[in-house]
Amino acid sequence: MSGNAKKNGSPSKTNHQKTDYERIFHPKKLAIIGVSAEYGSTGFGTNLFRSITAIGFQGEIFPVNPKGGTIDGLNIFKKVEDIPGIVDFAVIAIAARYVPKVLEECLKKGVAGVEILSSGFSELGTEEGEELEQQIKNIAAKGIRVIGPNCFGIYCPKSGLTLMPGPDLSRQSGPVAFLSQSGGIAIDFAHTGKWKGILFSKVISFGNGADLREAELINYLANDDETGVIAMYIEGIHDGDDFFREIKAAARKKPVVVYKGGLSGAGQRAVTSHTASMGGNRAIWESVLKQVNAIQVYNTEELAQTCLAFSLLPQRSFHAISIIGGGGALGVAACDTAENFGIEVPPLATSLREQIEEFLPKPGSSAINPIDVANPTVPAHALKEILLCAAEDKRIELQIFVSLLYHYKPYALAMKKSINDVTPYRQLAESFREVVDKTGKPIIVTLPNPKKGLADLDVIELIIRARQEFLARGIPVFDELHDAIRAIAHVNAYSTKRKIK
Amino acid sequence: MSGNAKKNGSPSKTNHQKTDYERIFHPKKLAIIGVSAEYGSTGFGTNLFRSITAIGFQGEIFPVNPKGGTIDGLNIFKKVEDIPGIVDFAVIAIAARYVPKVLEECLKKGVAGVEILSSGFSELGTEEGEELEQQIKNIAAKGIRVIGPNCFGIYCPKSGLTLMPGPDLSRQSGPVAFLSQSGGIAIDFAHTGKWKGILFSKVISFGNGADLREAELINYLANDDETGVIAMYIEGIHDGDDFFREIKAAARKKPVVVYKGGLSGAGQRAVTSHTASMGGNRAIWESVLKQVNAIQVYNTEELAQTCLAFSLLPQRSFHAISIIGGGGALGVAACDTAENFGIEVPPLATSLREQIEEFLPKPGSSAINPIDVANPTVPAHALKEILLCAAEDKRIELQIFVSLLYHYKPYALAMKKSINDVTPYRQLAESFREVVDKTGKPIIVTLPNPKKGLADLDVIELIIRARQEFLARGIPVFDELHDAIRAIAHVNAYSTKRKIK
Repeated sequence: MSGNAKKNGSPSKTNHQKTDYERIFHPKKLAIIGVSAEYGSTGFGTNLFRSITAIGFQGEIFPVNPKGGTIDGLNIFKKVEDIPGIVDFAVIAIAARYVPKVLEECLKKGVAGVEILSSGFSELGTEEGEELEQQIKNIAAKGIRVIGPNCFGIYCPKSGLTLMPGPDLSRQSGPVAFLSQSGGIAIDFAHTGKWKGILFSKVISFGNGADLREAELINYLANDDETGVIAMYIEGIHDGDDFFREIKAAARKKPVVVYKGGLSGAGQRAVTSHTASMGGNRAIWESVLKQVNAIQVYNTEELAQTCLAFSLLPQRSFHAISIIGGGGALGVAACDTAENFGIEVPPLATSLREQIEEFLPKPGSSAINPIDVANPTVPAHALKEILLCAAEDKRIELQIFVSLLYHYKPYALAMKKSINDVTPYRQLAESFREVVDKTGKPIIVTLPNPKKGLADLDVIELIIRARQEFLARGIPVFDELHDAIRAIAHVNAYSTKRKIK
Repeated sequence: MSGNAKKNGSPSKTNHQKTDYERIFHPKKLAIIGVSAEYGSTGFGTNLFRSITAIGFQGEIFPVNPKGGTIDGLNIFKKVEDIPGIVDFAVIAIAARYVPKVLEECLKKGVAGVEILSSGFSELGTEEGEELEQQIKNIAAKGIRVIGPNCFGIYCPKSGLTLMPGPDLSRQSGPVAFLSQSGGIAIDFAHTGKWKGILFSKVISFGNGADLREAELINYLANDDETGVIAMYIEGIHDGDDFFREIKAAARKKPVVVYKGGLSGAGQRAVTSHTASMGGNRAIWESVLKQVNAIQVYNTEELAQTCLAFSLLPQRSFHAISIIGGGGALGVAACDTAENFGIEVPPLATSLREQIEEFLPKPGSSAINPIDVANPTVPAHALKEILLCAAEDKRIELQIFVSLLYHYKPYALAMKKSINDVTPYRQLAESFREVVDKTGKPIIVTLPNPKKGLADLDVIELIIRARQEFLARGIPVFDELHDAIRAIAHVNAYSTKRKIK
């Protein structure tokens, strides 16, 4: 499992026990090395400088470039040592061959940590690349923490550090920490989180992981009060013992969600040319991750959905659920999927059914569970009563509402209004929140949308707005029922094993 | 398998050998029974009248209502018999208890077939509902074909018949026929097809299937020259022998894709209250569908993706593929998924790799396969050369390009232009079409998009436009790699078994 990684350069907790993560994630003074004074520069350093400025970084920014000059009215320092006072964190975005020298300068300056965005190291598979990365490891071992090289850096919504290029990421903090060996997945996941409702404590793209990497970062996040869920995209690991020991310890405190890339033969080959890590055998990974109570997922969509569920659902198991929606076939699909994931959709008690039937249009509806409201435009107050009734059944532990909001389009057209004006998504969100508060049973909403063409941009926008209203009230939203139910199953698996029933 | 369905009412081919499907799907004269002259009516009949008018139905429309009156300047006939000349097809949208009488009138008038949108029949599970449905069966047996009741009717892009409520469905015909027991799934699937690029020959929502239903319709579609792919959503079947025999025969001619709802216990319960059909055992369904070379799918998304692949890919197996995209982790994911579905991603021949490297930015790219172009904004002409080179490897049978068009957003912002103006999606589509024509090897494009929030409506619109450009040139588009690869696997499974390698 540990592969061929050289042990001498690998990090260990004892070397860095006093790592000042506070200075790394919430720097008061930040140096960005490799910012260009040239007009129109699109280099990594300039790009990140602009991104960090745009997102509204809390501390002071010091651009650095041996050529000096100014950028956006700010003086560019020629060297890190020229920056007055203590520098907490530095971004290094210069050609690979100059990195060791600059890293050494940061060490001398007392910088707590750096992120190296530059590529051209061990991922090349060349002797020169390996040698340069070894130099970085050697300098790091003297007392400066390194994230990267070949990475997109750190995103910390609270301090305003952002990934490259992430000027438009959210400044709202939340429970999810995300570790990623891939910069592309890190930035895409951070963007996905923004509209899907996943709020981050930290996102760390650590690329080649010359110094700080998976095991040590998991250890840190397990003890980080800002982090409630640890998610990661891992291509290969340095030390299997360390990695799985840290996951096991972390999973005793909070859920750990792992997307392991490179489980296949071809995938491992792709890993090698991407981040120069050792892959691993599919069966071994699956079995060991299960042993340490990590939740394994198989793509970034599933990763996002699982993080959302862990963020917004209470940590317990949901063995039986009710499903409410318009359209009988949706109920059928929901039941099939639920059974597949070991979740029950029990028929409601007869007395409750009778109560529910009072709020259902006839004919075509059904109050059994799944509850088929037949008409997708049943008003919010009726749905509220239905949800309250269904929650009275003691077996029901969670409710899913399938909201077919796109059906409001023909009404909007007939009334010559915009779909946004005729669709009661805010009332629905408010009602559902009241039901959750009253019953103590979570509600999940799914917002499928078959209308995604150019003529239906208004429907697309409506769904985005509706999603925001539900999320703003702590109600998780998924596109498809299948996604929601799989995510519940992950929460169940984790909670059951942790024995928080 | 055949459940408790009464045999006496079930259709058989011998009864209806002379069914005039031409008059049903392409009626010259269409009666819509249950149109209301009242201003603001939202009844099914009025709704469908407006939908069929809006979509531009080719023939003559005759609204019918015993109260008479006019609608949109058109005379409403009091009875079907009052309509001058031959009526080919009729829509019946009136209260259930009046349906048998009106159906009898249609029979007398010589109408070839009707669709009954009304519900209130066997799906209620009441004696009255069963009795009414039996009356319909009895009348149908005298020589008029019935679609429904409890259905959304027929969509035929060529003639302009449309589902309820489908005024905005496409008029472009194509190879996919879709049979659905659920009206909701029928209309949603037709809408999904519109933007996903699935073109339909016919969509038939047959609801309770009192007369025309699965087996007979499959038989018809198997021999229908306009249909190249038969897809269906089935909740329960009347006669297992008939059904599987017809699928087996059809699958010898064209792919048959089956989404069976109600495989679970709870799902079967939901089926009963939805379309009053018998469900079935999961294991039996899966094994029998495999035996008859049907492709089984498990949700409407997978159904749509599979139909798209069968529509646009040549019917053969694709055992080895190349994957080209920007971002190393995508290649890793692609390989993992491909292996999971039994598809190879072989390293390209060394000479080809060298040629490809000339077109790749450095560092960070890889020409092995997956080909990592590192920069998601590599221009169309370079991508064209890369695709041409990769296709020269004899093992490669299909190419997937992962297009991260959302990365053009920061460029657009920097250039103060719209993302639509700076993104070369049309050039990409044109280049890819040229590559397919030159190499004879299909290209599939995936257009993932992590930017789907309110601030990124421009990116969402761009992806829609890009999808249209690729589809217009016969290049299938999927959102996610996983979807594309699973769809290829379905094509492989069908083609291999049909021995068209």
